[in-house]
Amino acid sequence: MPSPADRTLAALPSGLPPAERAARMPAGFAAVGTTAGIKASGRPDFALVASTDGPVPAAAVFTPNRLAAAPVRLSRANLRATGGGPAACGLATAVVATSGAANAATGEAGDADQAAIGRAVAEALGCRPEHVLHLSTGVIGVRLPVGRVGETVARVAAAGRLAATDAALGDAAVSLRTTDTTAKSASVRLGVPAAAGGSAEITVAGIAKGVGMIHPRMATMLAVVLTDATASPETLRQILRGAAAVTWDQLSVDGDTSTNDTVFLLASGAAGAASADDSAEARSALAAAVGAVARDLARQQARDGEGATALVTCQVSGAADDADARAVARAVISSSLVKAAIHGRDANWGRIAAAAGNAQLAEAAILEAAGLAAAEAARRAGQPAAVDPARLRIAVAGHLVYDGAAGGPVAIDRAAVREAMGAEEVLVRLDLGLGDGQGEAFGCPLTEDYVRENSEYTT
Amino acid sequence: MPSPADRTLAALPSGLPPAERAARMPAGFAAVGTTAGIKASGRPDFALVASTDGPVPAAAVFTPNRLAAAPVRLSRANLRATGGGPAACGLATAVVATSGAANAATGEAGDADQAAIGRAVAEALGCRPEHVLHLSTGVIGVRLPVGRVGETVARVAAAGRLAATDAALGDAAVSLRTTDTTAKSASVRLGVPAAAGGSAEITVAGIAKGVGMIHPRMATMLAVVLTDATASPETLRQILRGAAAVTWDQLSVDGDTSTNDTVFLLASGAAGAASADDSAEARSALAAAVGAVARDLARQQARDGEGATALVTCQVSGAADDADARAVARAVISSSLVKAAIHGRDANWGRIAAAAGNAQLAEAAILEAAGLAAAEAARRAGQPAAVDPARLRIAVAGHLVYDGAAGGPVAIDRAAVREAMGAEEVLVRLDLGLGDGQGEAFGCPLTEDYVRENSEYTT
Repeated sequence: MPSPADRTLAALPSGLPPAERAARMPAGFAAVGTTAGIKASGRPDFALVASTDGPVPAAAVFTPNRLAAAPVRLSRANLRATGGGPAACGLATAVVATSGAANAATGEAGDADQAAIGRAVAEALGCRPEHVLHLSTGVIGVRLPVGRVGETVARVAAAGRLAATDAALGDAAVSLRTTDTTAKSASVRLGVPAAAGGSAEITVAGIAKGVGMIHPRMATMLAVVLTDATASPETLRQILRGAAAVTWDQLSVDGDTSTNDTVFLLASGAAGAASADDSAEARSALAAAVGAVARDLARQQARDGEGATALVTCQVSGAADDADARAVARAVISSSLVKAAIHGRDANWGRIAAAAGNAQLAEAAILEAAGLAAAEAARRAGQPAAVDPARLRIAVAGHLVYDGAAGGPVAIDRAAVREAMGAEEVLVRLDLGLGDGQGEAFGCPLTEDYVRENSEYTT
Repeated sequence: MPSPADRTLAALPSGLPPAERAARMPAGFAAVGTTAGIKASGRPDFALVASTDGPVPAAAVFTPNRLAAAPVRLSRANLRATGGGPAACGLATAVVATSGAANAATGEAGDADQAAIGRAVAEALGCRPEHVLHLSTGVIGVRLPVGRVGETVARVAAAGRLAATDAALGDAAVSLRTTDTTAKSASVRLGVPAAAGGSAEITVAGIAKGVGMIHPRMATMLAVVLTDATASPETLRQILRGAAAVTWDQLSVDGDTSTNDTVFLLASGAAGAASADDSAEARSALAAAVGAVARDLARQQARDGEGATALVTCQVSGAADDADARAVARAVISSSLVKAAIHGRDANWGRIAAAAGNAQLAEAAILEAAGLAAAEAARRAGQPAAVDPARLRIAVAGHLVYDGAAGGPVAIDRAAVREAMGAEEVLVRLDLGLGDGQGEAFGCPLTEDYVRENSEYTT
């Protein structure tokens, strides 16, 4: 007989510090968000975030899409030039973001456009073009109005509109939006050892956009995470990749991975904190804060998925290990049938169990970023996760609906479950009964509105 | 300047013999389809197909879902017992199929139910229980009414209702249906060398059901393919796996792989044809006929996908090789955004190109079944397919919409393209401009009806 606790499969603790849903500008950065005239609607479509004191360590995670957009290609090249190593970390002074045109599948002309924007930013800020990182989002195949973007850069710089304020970072978040219904930001403040002894407070703040073409293997979106903590490019790269592996790589709106996905992490060092390269305590604090910001942004992106009416969180415990748990969670929130059932407030454990049975581990790079040794990551990439129906338990919105060890289906109060499934966040909990592995993933219901929005969206 | 032919990217020839959309009973088999009372609607829900002359060589492809249903587990065990080797080929006298309850996630009770049905069939036909293969489809977690199924088996056997006619095979196809709007069958007749010299005519006939939880890695469905050709179990296994790799493994309705997917191929040898084990000509004819039947059934399943208003065929040419081409085709027809755009009759090449850029090769077993050497299959499994936007060309419904070498987007007559996209079959053609590889995949539009149907479907 399951205990009362067993009958709900309560939510797993995230183990991360709480994030505030606000943009708190870390020391050493300034930002601006405004309208450059890329969007026909006249809504804000241009953001610029810059270090106030020259180039700072920066890291990135990019889309694996083979048709990577011009901003992705140029950012990779710039990080390669300034980092001297792989294309995922180096130095950066600024991030320029445009919204309304993806500058993807625009050929050499698109590359030239993006380079021209980089030169305009470099000239306005007095930095080198390779210290400018690029984000762009919007319709694929549409070129950027380079003239208008360049004029906007010059205008905001001349008017001194880059401000080191929370409001300016919030404006930048607004400018990232495409079909997002809300601007997305999250911030964490944590005490860490100071460089000079004693303690310092670091801020990690992220802004992001969703909300379509979102799927694991770098969930599709743009995000900029800023911190005044101190770390080398390589340490930032490791921290960012590790955070993405358990947050954005566990996020799916619709199974499509876009051409423009990018997240950047820049560290100004302005908080005077001990370097994460030298202090294990500083490193783990920075990793926790980046993880918390990434997780909160991922949840906001899932909740605001195209046509979404709720956030769907799947948490898995009792897996053979964490990689298995994450694979099962991802499979559940990626299933169209599960997503449609949740939209219909149907606690359809059969579809959840079937999705779990299809779970395949992530690709090697993601497994490695999440902590597996390289050889094990290579061996297990794409392999099925271990699931045993006789040990599986499933709870939906706090109601146990399937208990494999007790014969399978559990009699439920349908009306109560329907009511519970009407919440802002629908928690799907699986316990696999096989080990200590835990993991989670974030998604949203599949609704008629998703179909309508995406069958009417202009090419 | 592209030639007129280049501007349409005409459909690729399948290279297969034409299939007739009818059930033509091969010699050596009999069938019956009737109502056993599993479905509350009273619609036909029971089918039995049997060899008229004892056990015959049989092969199978099963779902890779870890929560494989009781009929899948029992069929695997029976083929292992009669074949002495892997679980995918052996000997069989009959296939019993039930519709309305999947008998998946029903635990040991479900296994016992399925075994009882096997014993009832064995008793009625005078064969051994391990010579009975099992199919079941319907709601997950619901047990079969074993008593009613057993009575139905005894009743049809006692009444001599198993008939060696086209009509009886057609009735069996009707009984497989769940949410299918049409019964699905396809047949091919081909001349082959006779065992006794001269020539013989073989028949390959398939019946199948779709239409939800359908995705590559054995696309989700049930199918039975019968032939009066002669071949050993192992040859049948190779032929069936090869056919599935380029047909059912290239079919997606909604990205979910079910717990019950199964296709069986049984060969009676009653046509007096030379054995496919001994005659290369007989083998290639049988493989071509099985391939044509599988392809036609897969196309019927895609066309009848839940909520589907059309068949979407994606054909890819100019890939580095066939495995790459199949990966790209599968990625395109699996994309929710492409599917929604086709529903809206929007020739959204940006989404098609983005989907192509995400293409990943199939798992090793499928690559090997489709002809790659084992070592190469293992090395390339899950790897990205080569796609270069500067060489890519895309045509939708006969209209070139993107030409990477000519600067990208092609000016189109929007009204004419919308009109062409209203057809029963929407052809999406990609030429990658990289090599000679070709491949295709089958899917359907994503519609509000799919969401409605699946958010209202009872648990």
